[in-house]
Amino acid sequence: MPRATVRIRVPFVDVDSSERIHFTAVMRYWEVAEHALMRSLGLPYATALQEVAFPRVHVSADFKGAIGFDDELDVEARIERVGSTSWTIAFTARPADAGDEAPALAVGRMTVVAMDRATQRPAPLPADLRRALTSEDAPAPRP
Amino acid sequence: MPRATVRIRVPFVDVDSSERIHFTAVMRYWEVAEHALMRSLGLPYATALQEVAFPRVHVSADFKGAIGFDDELDVEARIERVGSTSWTIAFTARPADAGDEAPALAVGRMTVVAMDRATQRPAPLPADLRRALTSEDAPAPRP
Amino acid sequence: MPRATVRIRVPFVDVDSSERIHFTAVMRYWEVAEHALMRSLGLPYATALQEVAFPRVHVSADFKGAIGFDDELDVEARIERVGSTSWTIAFTARPADAGDEAPALAVGRMTVVAMDRATQRPAPLPADLRRALTSEDAPAPRP
Amino acid sequence: MPRATVRIRVPFVDVDSSERIHFTAVMRYWEVAEHALMRSLGLPYATALQEVAFPRVHVSADFKGAIGFDDELDVEARIERVGSTSWTIAFTARPADAGDEAPALAVGRMTVVAMDRATQRPAPLPADLRRALTSEDAPAPRP
Repeated sequence: MPRATVRIRVPFVDVDSSERIHFTAVMRYWEVAEHALMRSLGLPYATALQEVAFPRVHVSADFKGAIGFDDELDVEARIERVGSTSWTIAFTARPADAGDEAPALAVGRMTVVAMDRATQRPAPLPADLRRALTSEDAPAPRP
Repeated sequence: MPRATVRIRVPFVDVDSSERIHFTAVMRYWEVAEHALMRSLGLPYATALQEVAFPRVHVSADFKGAIGFDDELDVEARIERVGSTSWTIAFTARPADAGDEAPALAVGRMTVVAMDRATQRPAPLPADLRRALTSEDAPAPRP
Repeated sequence: MPRATVRIRVPFVDVDSSERIHFTAVMRYWEVAEHALMRSLGLPYATALQEVAFPRVHVSADFKGAIGFDDELDVEARIERVGSTSWTIAFTARPADAGDEAPALAVGRMTVVAMDRATQRPAPLPADLRRALTSEDAPAPRP
Repeated sequence: MPRATVRIRVPFVDVDSSERIHFTAVMRYWEVAEHALMRSLGLPYATALQEVAFPRVHVSADFKGAIGFDDELDVEARIERVGSTSWTIAFTARPADAGDEAPALAVGRMTVVAMDRATQRPAPLPADLRRALTSEDAPAPRP
């Protein structure tokens, strides 16, 4: 399934007085990886926000190791499941250049639903979005 | 089990270009409710950060309804489970003054672990913390 | 000139590893006070975003005292100057209940320009906006 | 005087419902450039936080052009003035690869004071910090 990785250096503002990253910052990085993945699939997020909106309906995260100021992370977004009206993305944050086998510092998952803006109810995924999300040969850019 | 509720008016900065609240903002509000709960139990968070640290190890959220700029929310934190080295807090965000029976706009859960700073491993909850977290007659302030 | 004050308790996430508030958090509080002022004048910010946009063109801040986690602040926004195409708001953050004579922990200033969305150039302030911004007898709510 | 530039792609979360970047996000990018500059001078910010703290005492910003989601920016921090107990950094945000002559989208300035942690009063800049901040031949990395 398609995936994309972004490299992020933890800025000072994202570290709280415990001298570790605030947990919500990790989730903001996930969104950055998600958007890099969308871009790599030719699906700019901005374009997507028209008749169909894509609210997040579920998010979860497990934190496994300390992340601090100036740490460099490779944050990966990977399409995990594509349903009829939703899709799920799996996320992993690892130390930069540690490789896919290295233990993750944080993992997570996000489910996005296609919502008809008029009815505010779930709608079938547009065909081209579904095709892109399920493509086997997607590039794996490292922007 | 102890609980606390805070009232929050959604600031402009927490709403993204979808004109809905960013999902990470809801989780920041949960932390505000969590700290109000700790304060109500006589457990200021700052004091807690000494020999034992309390990293979050798991967070999850389900988003059920639209939240926008200037909306007023009642965000509740409620101790759900107290284990030997961790505890779990359940969160709910409802429209202000909607009452406990109103459908939630967002719900979630967070597990916090007591971690020995020296060994970086889980440690038994300090006795007074455990006592406070499991008190039956805790106040339910609405600061 | 119209003014409004909001009370804000500094959340954990707004404090960085220096154990003081991050400077950008103070400016987010100013915006909260600004919007409370707009609301008190019958000028909901959301309504304002139609043909005319109101980008900030200048912001400045002076930080005079330490602000930390859980501190309660009274943050005031006060219309300082209303020009033909812009207005300037002055901000002050003081310890809660310290009174207007207490030394400020932070002060600042923001200039907002009315910009015609079509031409992307400064435009005369709409008459009702100008009237509200210059009203002598505006309420001074403390929401 | 020493300078450093960082490239930043504006994340979704930093754009508000005006579909432009929130003004405080620009200032967070400045801090990223500031820390890249400190690193390039061999002055990791973390190391600096010992006997002497370095609170910001003044910040100002002028916003000159629209910045939106996914825009790529080159954000430069440049030492502008080094005094006996403080220094001032000038910041510029330009479209990526636009070059130093391109009109800036935002400019700003920040003054940092050396503060003795014990007395909470301004203190002379440590000699090695002063030397680094005034070095003529500092590298200008683009991390």
